[in-house]
Amino acid sequence: MHKSLGAKPVLFPLPVLMIGTYDLEGKPNLMNAAWGGICSSQPPCVSISIRPERHTYTAIMERKAFTIGIPSADYIKQADYVGIVSGKNTDKFAATGLTSVKSELVDAPYVLEFPVSLECKLLHTLELGVHTMMVGEIMDVKVAKSVLDEDGLPDIFRINPMVYETIRKAYHSVGPVLGKAFTMGKEF
Amino acid sequence: MHKSLGAKPVLFPLPVLMIGTYDLEGKPNLMNAAWGGICSSQPPCVSISIRPERHTYTAIMERKAFTIGIPSADYIKQADYVGIVSGKNTDKFAATGLTSVKSELVDAPYVLEFPVSLECKLLHTLELGVHTMMVGEIMDVKVAKSVLDEDGLPDIFRINPMVYETIRKAYHSVGPVLGKAFTMGKEF
Repeated sequence: MHKSLGAKPVLFPLPVLMIGTYDLEGKPNLMNAAWGGICSSQPPCVSISIRPERHTYTAIMERKAFTIGIPSADYIKQADYVGIVSGKNTDKFAATGLTSVKSELVDAPYVLEFPVSLECKLLHTLELGVHTMMVGEIMDVKVAKSVLDEDGLPDIFRINPMVYETIRKAYHSVGPVLGKAFTMGKEF
Repeated sequence: MHKSLGAKPVLFPLPVLMIGTYDLEGKPNLMNAAWGGICSSQPPCVSISIRPERHTYTAIMERKAFTIGIPSADYIKQADYVGIVSGKNTDKFAATGLTSVKSELVDAPYVLEFPVSLECKLLHTLELGVHTMMVGEIMDVKVAKSVLDEDGLPDIFRINPMVYETIRKAYHSVGPVLGKAFTMGKEF
């Protein structure tokens, strides 16, 4: 038996995305976003959704660029702080001690301490209501060498990314491997 | 130090989404998608990205509707099977034993056995390259009563959703709570 929750933005799992931008004054800023995901393989694209009143919205519309950082759980407090205050009146890098690195590919900064960063050029915007969706083409994915495995590939346990749970507004870790894709289903 | 992975569709975590549709003949079908996420709070919207050659693409374009089911890890084999074969020549419900339920709100089926289902009306499409993004308005979220907690809210551990890891192509569980959002960051 099912219960109707009503028309609500609910999905499991949700990501914890740190959107990096330079604002109009050139100050690096970060936003904490759970509304987003990969939306194309070729060209590789990612979408994020941002309210127009956000400081990050203006920065992306002006600079046509953003980064998406995946913070490890070691930075849970910094990531949460980023979602509490506005870059309009706060220097979030100074407050948290995170280090801004200027991307050589797009007009946006990424975070030195985060294990994974996507550098994105704005391709499309789509107004949906209170949020505007922004689609970015992924120009490169930067991965900290410390999270690469013996094959030189990023290892999810070394990255230690967080999952956002929107009902209880909690951050979770990623759990163990349950099975291999394109393999488990072959028995049917 | 960072390493460039190149321009690739990489994000952590990714969801495991079961896209439910009726095809042109009225046969219920499912597709396994990792490219998608919530994209608006009001109206509540979710986006998924689908290649035009997929059976599900034609079904959504025709019916202007789809559902998104969140399978629990108990259904990992069924979910994986859904991603291996095409609905063009397979009845995935018959093959897996999953039960199709006709939505009363949109022209698409959801899966009785899955703990969470979003019923969506197609609002927008956006061609991005090999994938077309489809934005659906969430008309209702159906949750199995068996996964509700004492407050009547969906509990992520009872839902037991999966996380998709695109590098090793593996399914993971969701791990323990690390902290509360809008709380952990207050120390800065």
